[in-house]
Amino acid sequence: MQHAEQTETAEHAHAVDRTAEVVVIGGGFAGLALAEELGKAGRDVLVIDRQNHHLFQPLLYQVATAALSSTEIAEPIRKILRRRRSVRVLMGEVSGLDPEARKLWLRSGEEIGFRLLVVASGATHGYFGHDDWAKWAPGLKSLEDARRIRSQILLAFERAERCPDPEEVRRLLSIVIVGGGPTGVELAGSIAELSRHTLARDFRHIDPAQTCITLIEAGPRLLAGFSEEASDFATRRLARLGVTVRTGALVEDVGPEGVTVAGQALPAGAVIWAAGVAASPLARDLGETDRSGRIAVDPTLAVPGHPGIYALGDIAACPGPDGRPLPGLAQVAKQQGQHLGRELVRHLQTGTAPAPFTYHSRGNTAIVGRHAAVFEGRRVRWRGWFAWLGWAVIHVYLLVGFRNRTLVSVQWLWRYLTYERGARLIADDRPDPAAPAEAATPRPPTE
Amino acid sequence: MQHAEQTETAEHAHAVDRTAEVVVIGGGFAGLALAEELGKAGRDVLVIDRQNHHLFQPLLYQVATAALSSTEIAEPIRKILRRRRSVRVLMGEVSGLDPEARKLWLRSGEEIGFRLLVVASGATHGYFGHDDWAKWAPGLKSLEDARRIRSQILLAFERAERCPDPEEVRRLLSIVIVGGGPTGVELAGSIAELSRHTLARDFRHIDPAQTCITLIEAGPRLLAGFSEEASDFATRRLARLGVTVRTGALVEDVGPEGVTVAGQALPAGAVIWAAGVAASPLARDLGETDRSGRIAVDPTLAVPGHPGIYALGDIAACPGPDGRPLPGLAQVAKQQGQHLGRELVRHLQTGTAPAPFTYHSRGNTAIVGRHAAVFEGRRVRWRGWFAWLGWAVIHVYLLVGFRNRTLVSVQWLWRYLTYERGARLIADDRPDPAAPAEAATPRPPTE
Repeated sequence: MQHAEQTETAEHAHAVDRTAEVVVIGGGFAGLALAEELGKAGRDVLVIDRQNHHLFQPLLYQVATAALSSTEIAEPIRKILRRRRSVRVLMGEVSGLDPEARKLWLRSGEEIGFRLLVVASGATHGYFGHDDWAKWAPGLKSLEDARRIRSQILLAFERAERCPDPEEVRRLLSIVIVGGGPTGVELAGSIAELSRHTLARDFRHIDPAQTCITLIEAGPRLLAGFSEEASDFATRRLARLGVTVRTGALVEDVGPEGVTVAGQALPAGAVIWAAGVAASPLARDLGETDRSGRIAVDPTLAVPGHPGIYALGDIAACPGPDGRPLPGLAQVAKQQGQHLGRELVRHLQTGTAPAPFTYHSRGNTAIVGRHAAVFEGRRVRWRGWFAWLGWAVIHVYLLVGFRNRTLVSVQWLWRYLTYERGARLIADDRPDPAAPAEAATPRPPTE
Repeated sequence: MQHAEQTETAEHAHAVDRTAEVVVIGGGFAGLALAEELGKAGRDVLVIDRQNHHLFQPLLYQVATAALSSTEIAEPIRKILRRRRSVRVLMGEVSGLDPEARKLWLRSGEEIGFRLLVVASGATHGYFGHDDWAKWAPGLKSLEDARRIRSQILLAFERAERCPDPEEVRRLLSIVIVGGGPTGVELAGSIAELSRHTLARDFRHIDPAQTCITLIEAGPRLLAGFSEEASDFATRRLARLGVTVRTGALVEDVGPEGVTVAGQALPAGAVIWAAGVAASPLARDLGETDRSGRIAVDPTLAVPGHPGIYALGDIAACPGPDGRPLPGLAQVAKQQGQHLGRELVRHLQTGTAPAPFTYHSRGNTAIVGRHAAVFEGRRVRWRGWFAWLGWAVIHVYLLVGFRNRTLVSVQWLWRYLTYERGARLIADDRPDPAAPAEAATPRPPTE
């Protein structure tokens, strides 16, 4: 076995194949599930991703709030697909696409040919036309985003500790989160715990428990995808943690000193963007997109007008049972990947057209601070500690790779018992990582 | 208790103290041990560090080779010193020092006054006057360094996998490590394992086990600080792991394509610098320095000509029993910190001059690949598996903080059983973390 593989490697060593039967763009939940299914059937698949790792996005807010470390929620894509010998992985960014010629190009200049193409490159945050706000209010989509937000929050405390001006201290200890969906609610609860418990005894001049956390939502209530009872529960729980919730409030400006909401300046030491979603720019190469930039697909996940090209996950607007597009959830992406993977195996073997996709909701969850959550399935609605436990068990189980499961469990257990957080590192982001003169001179923490 | 502290915090809230009885520059092994001793006695101490975290440097090579994650070998300095209520921590970089006026300045512009000053700001890597080499051959001193080296190594494999030119593939799969001290030996062994075991089945075109690892040492043998038997053992063990050791070889040039050694070009996909040490630039402000830029101190760790100013750890050249300066080891730094801390407590209480420092060696260790190490104490010399076990137990025990100990143990056990490494992430270093246009466009992996 070992020997046979080595021979195979040697044979291929000088022939890097630039085409694949199925090319998959994106190694997220959708792309991985699809590649797994095609790989099981031994089909020739090439997965292209900008990163070398798959990211377990539902736990990304825990990296941003120093509860977990980056490596605990990410796995190399190669490792995940290692046993599927017919699946290849390429780290690269797709820069262009010609659906007719069955070709795409990477930013590195390489040309890749395909017979079938599956676009699953996901979404990024949208600033409703105010892309300049991104500088002051980072969103949360990648590990880099999470590290940046973590540094920003922790640096605000460091700056406040040394600041002689009480008004500036109040500003630095104000954190604003824009967007009252699950990510915003989870961030608010997690930052509240960080300031009230984890950091409580670390400073001498400031009291981190005085941190003023504001969660701003443009719509009438938090967690719009859940029931009104869930919104009320989240609002009450967050209030108990000291979070101020402002619904029906539109952010009009974001700058270095804070945000402006309904004409009123809200000074802040850190602003985090958890609103707005924009699909990956690749969508535009495939024609019609909706308001969020998503590709409209038919119920079989095919892109109309482009035979043999499919889109799924957050980049696709796939009609649900009520006609509205399915939400951008990990479970939607995963089910779509599994479904299309199985359908494409059949299609490649027998030529039959893929069957339509049906979404089976496993229920929706959002975490509201320490050991409280809302869970809403088709038959049950749970709120509080029991929902949190269910969420924790399911997420630990779902985390890709056994190693991560063990570590995350240990980490959680420890954190649950002690309020301690180990990942409280302020990243030392240097403008040019290669410049030697900079190496010994990181940016000063205050500007 | 809780209440009393809150009152104290409130009192201090508007009065940020800019002076301290003892100011400590650096939160490494020396600075922390010193602050602990002074804090136990309730003395007024201010610890200044460029980072918010203490780094367990002896395990840094494991972050660089994807075996551990950053957060597992770093702890916030505030957390470590949390219980010492008279000790304050300030994140900042010292830009200047006036020993006569008893003042120093931070890059942020703040002025700090002191009665006694302890300089423990450590060392960085030295390129023997070729600072431009740093661009191509990063050294290993900080978490950022480790992440950069990890990305560089993993990217070399990613590039090789897609490269059609066999000669370029050979270059990409060549890794050169400069410096045959413990760090160089540990890196070589760890990279050998990474390529031969961890990555073995992850690629389709290349065989990572073909990676050519070369360890270059200018002196006549590896591990110069150990016995000749230890050097032989390390050389044999590394050879068994597939590492080519070249001693008595001087690096003459380093560039984007590799290194030049003794007139011969050695193409490489990644070059790592584990040679040369240079003290932190602060040393120059205090007068006389040795060849490595270290401050010459007297046996009491005092800086001659500057009463009340001390230097210890890697920045200090402190004479050992044989008259030669003590080596730059964590245990030297820690013992110096404990010693000077106790002496300064006595000095501040009674006015007696600090007593001279005596180093008690606990033995020297270096790891040579998987479960093999050399350990040399005053009475014993161990080599092989038993030395490795001793090293592992001691290092896990020494790691600051219980949480890290648990996690690192789990990680090690898992890795030992499976050759698996979880921290295989390629960092997405963006030139300007704040620029929104860049946010969705990381640098392509090939240039």
